[in-house]
Amino acid sequence: MLSEKNKILVESIKRLIRRGATSHLRKIVNKTHVGDLSVVFRSLSLNNQKQLFNMIDDIESKGLLFCELDKDTFLEIVEDIQLDSLVAILKEMQTDDVADLIAKLPEERAKAVLEKMEKEDSEEVEDLLRYDDDTAGGIMVPEFIALNQEMTAKQAIESLQTEHQDVEMPFYLYATDEYGCLMGVISLRQLVVVAPQTPLKEFMAKEVISVLPSVDQEEVARIVARYDILAVPVVDENRHLIGIVTVDDVIDIFRQEATEDILKMAGAGEEFIETKSVIRSTKTRLPWLFVSCIGGILASLIIGSFQGSLAKFTYLAAFIPVIAGMGGNIGTQSSTIVVRGLATGRLNIRDIWPVVLKELTVGLILGIVYGTMIGLVAQFQYSRVALAISVCSAVVSSMTIAALVGSLVPMVFARINIDPAVATGPFVTTSIDIISVFFYFQIATILLGV
Amino acid sequence: MLSEKNKILVESIKRLIRRGATSHLRKIVNKTHVGDLSVVFRSLSLNNQKQLFNMIDDIESKGLLFCELDKDTFLEIVEDIQLDSLVAILKEMQTDDVADLIAKLPEERAKAVLEKMEKEDSEEVEDLLRYDDDTAGGIMVPEFIALNQEMTAKQAIESLQTEHQDVEMPFYLYATDEYGCLMGVISLRQLVVVAPQTPLKEFMAKEVISVLPSVDQEEVARIVARYDILAVPVVDENRHLIGIVTVDDVIDIFRQEATEDILKMAGAGEEFIETKSVIRSTKTRLPWLFVSCIGGILASLIIGSFQGSLAKFTYLAAFIPVIAGMGGNIGTQSSTIVVRGLATGRLNIRDIWPVVLKELTVGLILGIVYGTMIGLVAQFQYSRVALAISVCSAVVSSMTIAALVGSLVPMVFARINIDPAVATGPFVTTSIDIISVFFYFQIATILLGV
Repeated sequence: MLSEKNKILVESIKRLIRRGATSHLRKIVNKTHVGDLSVVFRSLSLNNQKQLFNMIDDIESKGLLFCELDKDTFLEIVEDIQLDSLVAILKEMQTDDVADLIAKLPEERAKAVLEKMEKEDSEEVEDLLRYDDDTAGGIMVPEFIALNQEMTAKQAIESLQTEHQDVEMPFYLYATDEYGCLMGVISLRQLVVVAPQTPLKEFMAKEVISVLPSVDQEEVARIVARYDILAVPVVDENRHLIGIVTVDDVIDIFRQEATEDILKMAGAGEEFIETKSVIRSTKTRLPWLFVSCIGGILASLIIGSFQGSLAKFTYLAAFIPVIAGMGGNIGTQSSTIVVRGLATGRLNIRDIWPVVLKELTVGLILGIVYGTMIGLVAQFQYSRVALAISVCSAVVSSMTIAALVGSLVPMVFARINIDPAVATGPFVTTSIDIISVFFYFQIATILLGV
Repeated sequence: MLSEKNKILVESIKRLIRRGATSHLRKIVNKTHVGDLSVVFRSLSLNNQKQLFNMIDDIESKGLLFCELDKDTFLEIVEDIQLDSLVAILKEMQTDDVADLIAKLPEERAKAVLEKMEKEDSEEVEDLLRYDDDTAGGIMVPEFIALNQEMTAKQAIESLQTEHQDVEMPFYLYATDEYGCLMGVISLRQLVVVAPQTPLKEFMAKEVISVLPSVDQEEVARIVARYDILAVPVVDENRHLIGIVTVDDVIDIFRQEATEDILKMAGAGEEFIETKSVIRSTKTRLPWLFVSCIGGILASLIIGSFQGSLAKFTYLAAFIPVIAGMGGNIGTQSSTIVVRGLATGRLNIRDIWPVVLKELTVGLILGIVYGTMIGLVAQFQYSRVALAISVCSAVVSSMTIAALVGSLVPMVFARINIDPAVATGPFVTTSIDIISVFFYFQIATILLGV
């Protein structure tokens, strides 16, 4: 949600745009922090976003804003920018961010930009583009401070004063041996505190946590969170330092992964689509609903095959929604708990049986509670014991099976390396619908003796 | 999920416990990083956790591990620890973590611990306990570096070498005026780079982003993420610096909030419950299912009131699950997108009408697509045009209304300051069940001319 301050800002900017108060607008845009500006941008139309973007004087701010925009908005804005101006903006940006943006550009344009950039810069970017987007290699920055471990603290401070001006977050210094292999890490704080003549190797921390460039970004994020560090070095197979992943990127990863998981669980794509067009939004959501459509048609065929029972006891139909609904909801609870548990590391993929068994027990208990309740309603409503017992046992079996399916499916998916988040939502509720309806009519047909 | 390394670690620890290889176990426990140990702990039984905990020699590690444990596990372990040992462990911990743990203890024990602590420490803790758990005040640490802005860079470095040894993440120095009011911020890096005689006020950044202690932790986290800073200072109404919130806590907030939102949306409580007992788990999930139970009973009453139509056309029952299911699934998509959009700031609470209108359009388009498809299946199956048209229009209206309800409800909830995450899941799907069933039978009764 927008903070009070940004709400006011959005309102005034919109008012100024309506009035066409260009010079006033320009003043506000250039006085506002890019962090706030990116929030404000999301509340504006594309045309207004373009208009505001062109008012920004500071090239560095333009670059920072680029990183915060949606892919679609970025592409629209960037289309109107001349190659020279674009390269000038990219020059002010962090290498990892440049690589991200270039990966988003159409191939032709990306090539043109890389050719126009200074050789050293474009080589660094191309190095990063070699790695998958969502690996340590894809999110690392090649700007870090690596010093020979034989250097003294004093020499290290001097090198900070003269070189390494382009380092993003210079909170750790990495110490290497004569072959450039990572040997230790020193915090800036330690550097200031020790006697100036102490060599780095004497006070550096020697057990450095590092990752290979191929490690998944989620794993990198979990490492940073687990060890409470501000950056994790990325090394190749020979322990050569090739980059670092900083904590600000880790925060973005956690937010992005959480959003992805939530959307996937609801069958609403992977990326946040509300800001996209109706057509795009419809396209993303269509296939997920197809699963539930096919499942629903299957359920209708099952019910159709019990037409004999239905013709004799029409009130059987009345309990279809509550039986399917109770199963669907407890199934969603189970799968959500398992998916989130796996994602946060609270559940272990190896504990498949204890977890499923526990869910099964919870499903059975809740099934008996609600089965009895809904059975009593059926008895009270239609005064037929056989119906009441059918409804009750259908709820019990539906909820028990739903808890089983809801917990087992994501566990199995995780085990065979399919993202468990896609296993919930449409898949789980639809299969529960089918199973519930089948059990209900099967039990009722036997008990009512059709 | 456990990393390969930790999987092996869990396996060896379990094996050593089974064998009773105490001395070997003790060696492993004390060699393992606390970050890994906390992950391993979650895969062990309570008794084994207690056993391992007692093997840890380093008091500081014990404290770090405390912070990582679930509330239940922490309480079980802490019960067996003598007051003196407990106070010794807390003494090594960060003040904000101590306050968190003391807040978890039973009242008696908490009081005893605070009395036993050194006066200065317990006062700091009590200061923090005054603030709500989930506000800036509740998560800030009182350890920070504040220096007079008239000091020179050289004096500042000297003060780092002599004082401020207990500061958690000393990456920023805060400059204050003679009244202790926050005036500027300096990064450790700048301090090292400028000429030693430069006074702080000449190179400090003067526009410091700060928060009041009452600000919600989610807002604090968003500020840190938005401005890419490593800590945000907390000031009182007079701009006196009273604490800082560091980036490691911000990461925890984002993860915790995402988990909470996901669980709430599925009606599975707020806290992660898989590690809790079956009884506890059942209790948490029971009330949410009650909503869906009542809704289901209402739906059964509605269907019951259309018994006349059902008796004549039993095949009407066959399409109940698919109509309710399609509505339920698109409703979940809409509400998930809105809830997550509001949580991440991608959607603005003021844009209620554009968002709802867009969802309505998407619902209508998808409704027409799937309505036609399911209507054709009905026609093919039962060769009755009136039924096919009823089913088709029921799907269209169910999906359109579901998209409307799914997006409107969380928007309205957010507007009246109720957490929109609780509005999705059971509430949305259940009300859609009722509405869908009613529309379906109403349309069918008219078209089939019962």
